[in-house]
Amino acid sequence: MEIKHFNTKEVKTVRDLTNQFNNLGFQAKKLAQATNIIEEMFNDKDCTVFLGLAGAMVPAGMKQIIIDLINNNQIDVLVTTGANLTHDLIEALGHKHVQGSEKADDKELNKQEINRIYNVYMENKVYKDLEDFFNKHFKELSQLTSTSEFLNLLGKLAPKDSILKAAYNQNIPIFCPALSDSGIGLMFLDKKINLNEFNDLNKIVNISWTSKRKGVIYIGGGVPKNYIQQSMQFTKGADYAVQITMDRPEIGGSSGAELKEGISWNKLQKTGKYVNLTCDATIALPIIHTSIKQKL
Amino acid sequence: MEIKHFNTKEVKTVRDLTNQFNNLGFQAKKLAQATNIIEEMFNDKDCTVFLGLAGAMVPAGMKQIIIDLINNNQIDVLVTTGANLTHDLIEALGHKHVQGSEKADDKELNKQEINRIYNVYMENKVYKDLEDFFNKHFKELSQLTSTSEFLNLLGKLAPKDSILKAAYNQNIPIFCPALSDSGIGLMFLDKKINLNEFNDLNKIVNISWTSKRKGVIYIGGGVPKNYIQQSMQFTKGADYAVQITMDRPEIGGSSGAELKEGISWNKLQKTGKYVNLTCDATIALPIIHTSIKQKL
Amino acid sequence: MEIKHFNTKEVKTVRDLTNQFNNLGFQAKKLAQATNIIEEMFNDKDCTVFLGLAGAMVPAGMKQIIIDLINNNQIDVLVTTGANLTHDLIEALGHKHVQGSEKADDKELNKQEINRIYNVYMENKVYKDLEDFFNKHFKELSQLTSTSEFLNLLGKLAPKDSILKAAYNQNIPIFCPALSDSGIGLMFLDKKINLNEFNDLNKIVNISWTSKRKGVIYIGGGVPKNYIQQSMQFTKGADYAVQITMDRPEIGGSSGAELKEGISWNKLQKTGKYVNLTCDATIALPIIHTSIKQKL
Amino acid sequence: MEIKHFNTKEVKTVRDLTNQFNNLGFQAKKLAQATNIIEEMFNDKDCTVFLGLAGAMVPAGMKQIIIDLINNNQIDVLVTTGANLTHDLIEALGHKHVQGSEKADDKELNKQEINRIYNVYMENKVYKDLEDFFNKHFKELSQLTSTSEFLNLLGKLAPKDSILKAAYNQNIPIFCPALSDSGIGLMFLDKKINLNEFNDLNKIVNISWTSKRKGVIYIGGGVPKNYIQQSMQFTKGADYAVQITMDRPEIGGSSGAELKEGISWNKLQKTGKYVNLTCDATIALPIIHTSIKQKL
Repeated sequence: MEIKHFNTKEVKTVRDLTNQFNNLGFQAKKLAQATNIIEEMFNDKDCTVFLGLAGAMVPAGMKQIIIDLINNNQIDVLVTTGANLTHDLIEALGHKHVQGSEKADDKELNKQEINRIYNVYMENKVYKDLEDFFNKHFKELSQLTSTSEFLNLLGKLAPKDSILKAAYNQNIPIFCPALSDSGIGLMFLDKKINLNEFNDLNKIVNISWTSKRKGVIYIGGGVPKNYIQQSMQFTKGADYAVQITMDRPEIGGSSGAELKEGISWNKLQKTGKYVNLTCDATIALPIIHTSIKQKL
Repeated sequence: MEIKHFNTKEVKTVRDLTNQFNNLGFQAKKLAQATNIIEEMFNDKDCTVFLGLAGAMVPAGMKQIIIDLINNNQIDVLVTTGANLTHDLIEALGHKHVQGSEKADDKELNKQEINRIYNVYMENKVYKDLEDFFNKHFKELSQLTSTSEFLNLLGKLAPKDSILKAAYNQNIPIFCPALSDSGIGLMFLDKKINLNEFNDLNKIVNISWTSKRKGVIYIGGGVPKNYIQQSMQFTKGADYAVQITMDRPEIGGSSGAELKEGISWNKLQKTGKYVNLTCDATIALPIIHTSIKQKL
Repeated sequence: MEIKHFNTKEVKTVRDLTNQFNNLGFQAKKLAQATNIIEEMFNDKDCTVFLGLAGAMVPAGMKQIIIDLINNNQIDVLVTTGANLTHDLIEALGHKHVQGSEKADDKELNKQEINRIYNVYMENKVYKDLEDFFNKHFKELSQLTSTSEFLNLLGKLAPKDSILKAAYNQNIPIFCPALSDSGIGLMFLDKKINLNEFNDLNKIVNISWTSKRKGVIYIGGGVPKNYIQQSMQFTKGADYAVQITMDRPEIGGSSGAELKEGISWNKLQKTGKYVNLTCDATIALPIIHTSIKQKL
Repeated sequence: MEIKHFNTKEVKTVRDLTNQFNNLGFQAKKLAQATNIIEEMFNDKDCTVFLGLAGAMVPAGMKQIIIDLINNNQIDVLVTTGANLTHDLIEALGHKHVQGSEKADDKELNKQEINRIYNVYMENKVYKDLEDFFNKHFKELSQLTSTSEFLNLLGKLAPKDSILKAAYNQNIPIFCPALSDSGIGLMFLDKKINLNEFNDLNKIVNISWTSKRKGVIYIGGGVPKNYIQQSMQFTKGADYAVQITMDRPEIGGSSGAELKEGISWNKLQKTGKYVNLTCDATIALPIIHTSIKQKL
């Protein structure tokens, strides 16, 4: 197909934007392809969609998109980091993240008890409310034995709109294989809790196993990507796959590995549709999400 | 300012998109800041805007944006690579670039006489028409002594719409310090031509020197960035600066160097407004360009 | 200090190499600084050293270095991924990883039942022996309730030299917060096991809490980095810190975050010595390790 | 070939280091391959070796390595940036670069008239001596008509050891297609000079054309890489190729493009030996250079 130069005169909406990107080269083309493949998996009624979400996506302002994806029944399984869920819960308790500068003096921020995440800040005092919340609900939470059940209850208990609450309402399972590696995890220091991360393993593998078709979206790699990928290995792999990351393949890590590599492992079907997009997710995800919504 | 989560319900246009990005963190925020600073330099009537354009931007589909910027009087000086101008002229001669795959078999492409630029292809036969063009106009072109005059004449001679022709029509100077390092350069193998790259040096330094205020936009680094930066050093530096690159600062090269470094060199004013955006230009440039247009 | 140009005439050993790097700029200087800071933490008798090891370091050939670090009492705590431990155990069961090509046809590899990790291959049949091993030892392993105890027993049971066995022999705790996200984890599909990842949380926090001084080495980010960092937050942070990663800070993820950011969170002391090294660990780690050994 | 884990006990010299790297995966393997291919081109008596050198390699401390390569007759053609030659000449005039910090306050450095290049500093006053040098030699230099002749004379005139002087002594041509984009270029502001960059084009193309075999080493991409590549296109391409860069292929620029892409363009032979190494050159180049020397 010929390259057609981006023509701003033909662009009004975000949908127009990705339509034009589809005529270009380099990563603009990849962004259009990612939009198209995600749209296709959303429209495939027999496709179970797994979203792997790593990186500090809640602090950066991606929360509502994830809530939308859940409420629209566009995703069926969420695998994410304890950090994202901690920040989600902190906001559900009434706190905010604020814009800051990556060039700030971190010693000064420390004095002011402000925690920095690149160009986003969070006050350290939020942990106080988090502790109160967990103290209040400790008894209920401590009886659960799998992380996905635990996160489901957390969604029920969350006082405000949040990824956790949306997933609870829509009965979407959230997996978080390293929950103890997070602010939520730290709430159970010196306390007895019964979580057994292996209890979730059968659950996600069964979802994968029993799905007619499977679509995977990997934001940022990490444990979420790897955990979804290993659930695919018992099948012939995903039918649709989109990866959005800035990590590089050359160093051999799972996060930056090209999706194509997954074909050798049965993580991706030999005939699967896939695209690797090299872009910060805070730019790519809003564009893809809005473009798909504007199509509908 | 509080992070406000991206809310697709409030987004119809690309302007809405960047307005929402302004509420986020990480590179989405940087993209909004880049849009705002570029808009500000375009609106500042006393500001001379220098665009440094590296990377294969014409093959990827960015040509019309550059033409728009010239026709809208949004940029006053263009510094680019010989490669971009060669691809621009090739298209002005009636050829097209086409979409391809970065996973292609390059040996097979070679047999088919197709040249690959990541996921963009160009047929090798285009050089034949390029040769004919230069043979036809050799006499005129060989009399010029500065690259900017040469490129100006090329714009006059170009048979179709192109960056070269737009710049000619609008009387915008194009600088290309390494023109011999390009397909256009190769047209003068074994021929006598009188270009002296030093003749342009005074010209760009004088533009910089006599500008009340200066705005710089660096796409992709390389010689274009460095050449604009050195023209700034005779002043107190640029007043506005935006850099869009995927290159990294940690290896010490000019392309990936943070704009802030330029303060030490008088390339950027101590009080200058600036932002470094880490994103492929084929995604960022169309968004910024369209957002600014939609504001107007 | 003046830059002294690298002088190969003065270089015989790897120690000479890093000594010369100390006179240079860019990442060579960072590599020398990393060597010096790691050496300093190793020599500080009151310093507890935490190694966070992410990325496919065992497949790439870094296993013996980690074993050496353990046997030399240079590290006191290892936090790593389930993948590294799975590959370690697979080799302890007699299998090998082999060199391959990142340009291979993954469909063909799939047919040959070869799994690819960038330019390293592993035969898929290794999982058979892994299953046999776990079936044989299931009863013992299934009684344990914390991942670190489980990994300790695995080290005892491992038939050959391995990271697991070295850690067992030297009584070095291994933490692996997302063990279920790995080949080892998959061995317990459809089986009852009692691991509770929260049981390890107190353990690592206590080690951090009771250490007079703390040194941290982060290879590749991921959960290992984040898990060590959160154990630091209850103190004033690490006294020495070295990070070796190719991930970028601009996207706000923990893996690429500059160590400096940790000061705001009490993950790094305000007066801590630290360096961020941007280099593939398969190059940097052998150099640092050998240079320190040659000094002794 | 099996991965053999890096074994520091077997490593004394830098040669041992790269020998061990040859047994590993990821970028360590690539570094070993780069060493082997460069060694092979150096040993091939019928091979003309082209070195493309971009990035601030002289400020970072790579000068002596380049001088060695020239004096050892290991390279036959050098293509570099005006910046590297400017810094080389500045040092030949008796000045030094010094180590600094990338976290420095650039406004403060500006006040102190110190120019920053990531973690390397240079005093701004060096330009005074540069001006005196060019004023003194203006007459001779202004009579030359090609950049390579100009740089040859500069090597003759340089008061001290330098890349320029070594190239002059060994009669190695230096090409610099964008010399006006540099501190040396700025010395001719408001002066009449006769350089015509096209005069060098025939020269490098003829070297390429008449070479029995060709080896290319690209450090950091930029104009030097592109200029060498275009000289290859008139042949069947390079027989040996090594690229050392941190730039990425995904954005379609020449600097980060994989060498394999060059096959489609006749820049690299279909049967050529090549490797892309992803590493900062300040680490890789000293290792490769020393390893090759220690073999001899």
